[in-house]
Amino acid sequence: MQNITNKFKITGNKKVSLKDYDTSFTAGYKKDDAEAVLADLVAQTADLQNQLYAANQGSLLILFQAMDAAGKDSAIKHTMSGVNPQGCQVYSFKQPSAEEYDHDFLWRHNKALPERGRIGVHNRSHYENVLVTKVHPEYVMNENIPGIKSPEDLDKDFWNKRYEAIRKFEEHLTNSGTVIIKFFLHLSKDEQKDRFLKRIEDTSKNWKFSAADLEERKLWKNYMEAYEDAIAATSTSEAPWYIIPADKKWFSRIAISNVIVETLKNMKLKYPELPEEEAGKLNEIKKMLEED
Amino acid sequence: MQNITNKFKITGNKKVSLKDYDTSFTAGYKKDDAEAVLADLVAQTADLQNQLYAANQGSLLILFQAMDAAGKDSAIKHTMSGVNPQGCQVYSFKQPSAEEYDHDFLWRHNKALPERGRIGVHNRSHYENVLVTKVHPEYVMNENIPGIKSPEDLDKDFWNKRYEAIRKFEEHLTNSGTVIIKFFLHLSKDEQKDRFLKRIEDTSKNWKFSAADLEERKLWKNYMEAYEDAIAATSTSEAPWYIIPADKKWFSRIAISNVIVETLKNMKLKYPELPEEEAGKLNEIKKMLEED
Repeated sequence: MQNITNKFKITGNKKVSLKDYDTSFTAGYKKDDAEAVLADLVAQTADLQNQLYAANQGSLLILFQAMDAAGKDSAIKHTMSGVNPQGCQVYSFKQPSAEEYDHDFLWRHNKALPERGRIGVHNRSHYENVLVTKVHPEYVMNENIPGIKSPEDLDKDFWNKRYEAIRKFEEHLTNSGTVIIKFFLHLSKDEQKDRFLKRIEDTSKNWKFSAADLEERKLWKNYMEAYEDAIAATSTSEAPWYIIPADKKWFSRIAISNVIVETLKNMKLKYPELPEEEAGKLNEIKKMLEED
Repeated sequence: MQNITNKFKITGNKKVSLKDYDTSFTAGYKKDDAEAVLADLVAQTADLQNQLYAANQGSLLILFQAMDAAGKDSAIKHTMSGVNPQGCQVYSFKQPSAEEYDHDFLWRHNKALPERGRIGVHNRSHYENVLVTKVHPEYVMNENIPGIKSPEDLDKDFWNKRYEAIRKFEEHLTNSGTVIIKFFLHLSKDEQKDRFLKRIEDTSKNWKFSAADLEERKLWKNYMEAYEDAIAATSTSEAPWYIIPADKKWFSRIAISNVIVETLKNMKLKYPELPEEEAGKLNEIKKMLEED
């Protein structure tokens, strides 16, 4: 299992070419076994999360990024249902509000970070600020950044500074006890087409579909380049990206769950122990209770 | 099943005497069947929550109040694990911060309300402001309320105004589409003693115990009176209290889950439907996709 985690992991500051990553890879797993494999991984996640919560020291931040229909929502549902919601906080980032635009681009993501002892899941994340905004630089105009007068001002230097800001933000979180996992669910353009068509045909799901989804699909190449640049510029050994093959939903869930379990195991979590002095007090209290 | 929900429900503005409620009641259920009964109820909760999330109109707020060791945390864990954390937000209220004391007593609870389409669980709630503070009126001094100079100023009129403020707050939420369930896990003093002793003896759990827990136990009678007054003053048909027998954890989970399922069912949730005009657009999009 360790091997599949490492297989998808990007840690170095090296060029990433997404077409080199097979979107339909399944690591030899069979679909028939997937349910049982996932159930076991989710049970392990639930146990480890209990220890994370009890220890109340570190936290785990899990980011999900992907093209539409890659299965972010269903991956969160299937890998996290079973975990105690008391220790698991999921935030879905939509278009920024006027208040959020009136702050730096990390502000709203910082506010939504998990507390100590919790797993925080960000459905979309601070990376939207170097993904959708890189494809649509006109969106950055809403941020009213000093010195930026038109989308033409958003040169290479601007984006490099954003990557650097993100790296420093994540470094600060890591230094403060937050372990970070970044998932890119890597879907093929053909599979997106099939899923869009299925969504349209399914009357219980077609309310999810909007014409805007098709407009973004036309910009597929631009998005892939933005992802490649962002992943290359922000993969570190402390806050790695994982490129998860997403054409088979059943496999992407196993791969995601596997990374989460391995990462939690590496945190070497322990239930807190009572200091000896406190243990003495407990004996006193026990006597008092027994006489109550 | 409907019957057990109604059995525990308090809706009228009538006197409540907690000693009339059997803390070890099990409604004829058997412990051996409990796991299967609960699993079925949790699966129903998960399904209904999917519909709540898809509809994105109403929300459900579930409050838990109880004496120490009554099983709030484990009740949340067992009735909510299995539900998609993306649509379920749990907040645990601890001692207020300095910033929180600098606001009215409902402020921090209001901030933590669930968004539309979500289930919000408050582990302890705005009721602490008429429970722990009624037993320890000196705590109210931290709130710096105009005209309140000492705990002696906290007369009957003060508490009645708090109850009224809570009723109006909850009425506003109800009118805005939030359905409210308020659980009091009703534990006997003897069962608390047994659980405290078990907690002390279990080295994996005794770090949870603090000497302060014993001090609060000494104020049992005062707490019961505070609960009786609060439940009587704030039970309404729109935001009912449920007095849940809590001596048998396996039964209190079934009772809680049952109330949640019945309440969600009564919300008559439906998946959204696509307006006809939009359906026409989808056909166009489908054609475009097929030619892609």
